[in-house]
Amino acid sequence: MLVLNSEDIYKSINPVGIIKAIEKAFFIQKNGNYLMPDRLHLTKNKNTQLLMPCIAENIACTKIVSINPNNQLKKLPIINGTVQLTRHTTGSILCLLNGSTLTALRTGGVGAVAIKYLTPNDINCIGLVGTGVQGLHVLWMLSHVRNIKQFNIFNYNTHQTELFCSQLEEKVPHTKIYITDSTKDLLNKSKAIITATDSPNPVLPEDISLLENKTYICIGSFRPIMGELPRSIYTLVNKMYIDVEYAKNESGDVTYPLEQGILKEDDVILLNNVIYGKTTVNEGIKIFKSVGMALFDLTTSNYIYQSALEKKIGTMINL
Amino acid sequence: MLVLNSEDIYKSINPVGIIKAIEKAFFIQKNGNYLMPDRLHLTKNKNTQLLMPCIAENIACTKIVSINPNNQLKKLPIINGTVQLTRHTTGSILCLLNGSTLTALRTGGVGAVAIKYLTPNDINCIGLVGTGVQGLHVLWMLSHVRNIKQFNIFNYNTHQTELFCSQLEEKVPHTKIYITDSTKDLLNKSKAIITATDSPNPVLPEDISLLENKTYICIGSFRPIMGELPRSIYTLVNKMYIDVEYAKNESGDVTYPLEQGILKEDDVILLNNVIYGKTTVNEGIKIFKSVGMALFDLTTSNYIYQSALEKKIGTMINL
Repeated sequence: MLVLNSEDIYKSINPVGIIKAIEKAFFIQKNGNYLMPDRLHLTKNKNTQLLMPCIAENIACTKIVSINPNNQLKKLPIINGTVQLTRHTTGSILCLLNGSTLTALRTGGVGAVAIKYLTPNDINCIGLVGTGVQGLHVLWMLSHVRNIKQFNIFNYNTHQTELFCSQLEEKVPHTKIYITDSTKDLLNKSKAIITATDSPNPVLPEDISLLENKTYICIGSFRPIMGELPRSIYTLVNKMYIDVEYAKNESGDVTYPLEQGILKEDDVILLNNVIYGKTTVNEGIKIFKSVGMALFDLTTSNYIYQSALEKKIGTMINL
Repeated sequence: MLVLNSEDIYKSINPVGIIKAIEKAFFIQKNGNYLMPDRLHLTKNKNTQLLMPCIAENIACTKIVSINPNNQLKKLPIINGTVQLTRHTTGSILCLLNGSTLTALRTGGVGAVAIKYLTPNDINCIGLVGTGVQGLHVLWMLSHVRNIKQFNIFNYNTHQTELFCSQLEEKVPHTKIYITDSTKDLLNKSKAIITATDSPNPVLPEDISLLENKTYICIGSFRPIMGELPRSIYTLVNKMYIDVEYAKNESGDVTYPLEQGILKEDDVILLNNVIYGKTTVNEGIKIFKSVGMALFDLTTSNYIYQSALEKKIGTMINL
């Protein structure tokens, strides 16, 4: 079994490879040749363990992720976990990867793929709310599908911003980073906005004139009680894109417009229909909501594993 | 994260420790302070991946097991897998263990605990059908709860028997091993019988006079279509012991008497009621059916982990 820690993973990959792995996941999803039961949540005393299994292309992939909200107070990472790859026909255990790094990379890849298929080619100014690990990786990845001149950053929790900017500068050099002092400023200056928070309340203002004609890539909320988008935004759209069917139940950003009858089930469309199907992207404001799926973990970690093998990176252990 | 391969695990443990860990699992099960959702089966092209999660005592344990029936033809192990231990309050990943070895040990421990609580103290002659890894570990473990003078062995697949006997002799020295030429012979010579096969059909004869007044510890069948016990055996009993509630749905050895109305739901009793409750063991023939549960994996692997830490065994890796 090859063990790939965080450092090994970063040494093994390049962003284009991650983006291709995510496109492959959307391709497999569109074609239906995979097995992916609902993910399993185990919550005890506010801490959650999430199991995300998937089988496709003779690989069985299981991600085990712990979510410990109070870790922030202890200066520990909120998300910890592993991804295990097994050859499905033999049960042979191939690889164990750091699950936090894998999650950050594949979530970044999903954001970049959404930007690639939902925004014009010449978009060069992107906004971000939420200066965490996921936000960092989305900006890094999307800088490989669009020629970005400026990132506009906003965070409610300002003390993280400095560290975030230095990390972003390292990942995406020669790109201007502008720290906005309000979300209004952020919206004014950005054609596409990434939201990457776990906020239960809208992180953008309820101002229709500011909200319209932009693209929103929402990768944060993953529970019905969480929702990053302002409610008035739904009066501007007649469809919405999601990564996986169960997003309709799992994120407040999708359950809200459905429950309120602002959107019908059929108005909420899988992004794979844009990438590999016949759905054309609507004009004006666009919303993409990702909650993630195990198929992303599978194709991304398999790409990382193959790449690490080629480059002879990682620690081989005998289990 | 501490990685414990098969060899590390055997060096870390002793059978009494495993048996105590299983008793602890029954204790936690009786008290109810644990979280254990139904295990998740993913089956594609006859190969199964089984996810068994559990949280108790601030440990989150997830076992990922692959079952590849055709591996036998390829001379590969049928069961492969891992067990991961995480500290639930922090998400910190503590240990990764070889899942096949853990499964063999904990299944052996369950068999031994059943023998301890369901048979007389002076029982000294045990029969076994099925000379696989699970059978070997049950005999090894139960030799630490009873003073065994003779093992009677039967297997339909005789070419494995020689290897099995040498392994058994190594684990349980100074005990006579008798290879029976029929299951009738086996029943005649044994007061308790372990069945450890994945047979879809009864592995013991339909002969009431031979079957009565013995104890049956069935650790094999784990699907409704599997069943090791002869059907006539159910006419001899008015209760049956199981390890976990879902055994009533998962094993043919329990679904059959329930569906036929030979036993009622209330006649099928959790073993923890014998160990920690007020249920007294019936006279005459006794049947215990185990399908396994994640709580066994949790307490057993946590014992192994603690013991390995103390003895400084295993490989510490930075994930």
